[in-house]
Amino acid sequence: MPPSQEAGEPASERVRLRRLPERGRYAPDDVRAVLDAGIIAHLGVSTPDGPVVIPMAFGHEGEWLYLHGSVANAALRAAAGEEVCVTVTVVDGLVVGRTPFHSSMNYRSVVVRGRARRVDDPAEHRRALAVVSDHIVETWDTGRPPTESELRRTFVLAVPLTEASAKVRTGDPKDEPEDLAGPHWAGSVPIATVWQSPVPSADLAAGIEVPTAVAGLTGTPVHGTPG
Amino acid sequence: MPPSQEAGEPASERVRLRRLPERGRYAPDDVRAVLDAGIIAHLGVSTPDGPVVIPMAFGHEGEWLYLHGSVANAALRAAAGEEVCVTVTVVDGLVVGRTPFHSSMNYRSVVVRGRARRVDDPAEHRRALAVVSDHIVETWDTGRPPTESELRRTFVLAVPLTEASAKVRTGDPKDEPEDLAGPHWAGSVPIATVWQSPVPSADLAAGIEVPTAVAGLTGTPVHGTPG
Repeated sequence: MPPSQEAGEPASERVRLRRLPERGRYAPDDVRAVLDAGIIAHLGVSTPDGPVVIPMAFGHEGEWLYLHGSVANAALRAAAGEEVCVTVTVVDGLVVGRTPFHSSMNYRSVVVRGRARRVDDPAEHRRALAVVSDHIVETWDTGRPPTESELRRTFVLAVPLTEASAKVRTGDPKDEPEDLAGPHWAGSVPIATVWQSPVPSADLAAGIEVPTAVAGLTGTPVHGTPG
Repeated sequence: MPPSQEAGEPASERVRLRRLPERGRYAPDDVRAVLDAGIIAHLGVSTPDGPVVIPMAFGHEGEWLYLHGSVANAALRAAAGEEVCVTVTVVDGLVVGRTPFHSSMNYRSVVVRGRARRVDDPAEHRRALAVVSDHIVETWDTGRPPTESELRRTFVLAVPLTEASAKVRTGDPKDEPEDLAGPHWAGSVPIATVWQSPVPSADLAAGIEVPTAVAGLTGTPVHGTPG
């Protein structure tokens, strides 16, 4: 990773935040913190009849963000070898300004741009599936291991994390000074996003315990703590 | 809207779900139900150096989905007059299969494709801002009305809702029949996403009451009820 990025500068101009630059964070740890908090990514791909944006599970390890899906998945197939954008967003609350112009949201987001690569190496392919599977909760090792056929039917896309920017907004609206003495309310409304108790499948045989990692989710925040 | 779409067929082939077509819904009411539940959209735009996906507040009315932002917003400017994709996703829970191949998420999403239009007509521009402002909670009428300068500094993008598809997944994992007798757990873990109590701005003057609509959010689900 370039030294300038370690120091909090963007790796390229196309991931620099031009507006409200004080909300931009480029250090790898800041980017990874938002990726860790997110549970879904939006993959953007160019196609001959316009861009397509598809929600997908994801994971990340080291310098790579991983997405997976069926080998028949059109967005993944279109992305392989091409420039893509992957965006992960967590919404933490609504920001109500004294005037709608200053209303906003509190959120954490990461935008990754780069050339996507289809993962063909069997070891990396399998490892990437474990990384995606374990991103939200570690279930890879407590499930039945994948068969060769299941591995063959799963497409893995890797996107380099070298060009990424995080954006974080917290706190109050930034209202106009002349509105502060006015009659209008201002503030924020936080959102709590919490795991509920696991619901066993209707076809689950009697006597099978919930894996510890799954049971441990109950009551915990899905996205960690904002900020 | 074409009659075929009313009957639950896609308006175009590019918004037809090819895989798992049973999860696709094309009727305008199904699309609007997901849009109503969502609080954030991901706008995908093609640029000379690849696609960009940016999270944004949104609203919708009639045949249009609206996005807004600063007139300096690069993604909105790049989108005007071009093909775009706008995706709205609500994650309702994690689906844990007996094997990772059948793990998934329960979610509701809408993908809209079409040519975006910059809104220049003053009446539609102002109305669209009210629609976006009121999408999550109605604050347009209880805030200070926008000034001419604020309106001028706000870019509104309209995307036609004529080519849209919704996708909804609920319930248990779809495991292999031969795994049902095995020792592995299967089920889902729902996510509860709930509004917390409003937090007044640090600079809020004494004696200003929380607007009824904002106060009324407390304890209610952010995304309505899945299904």
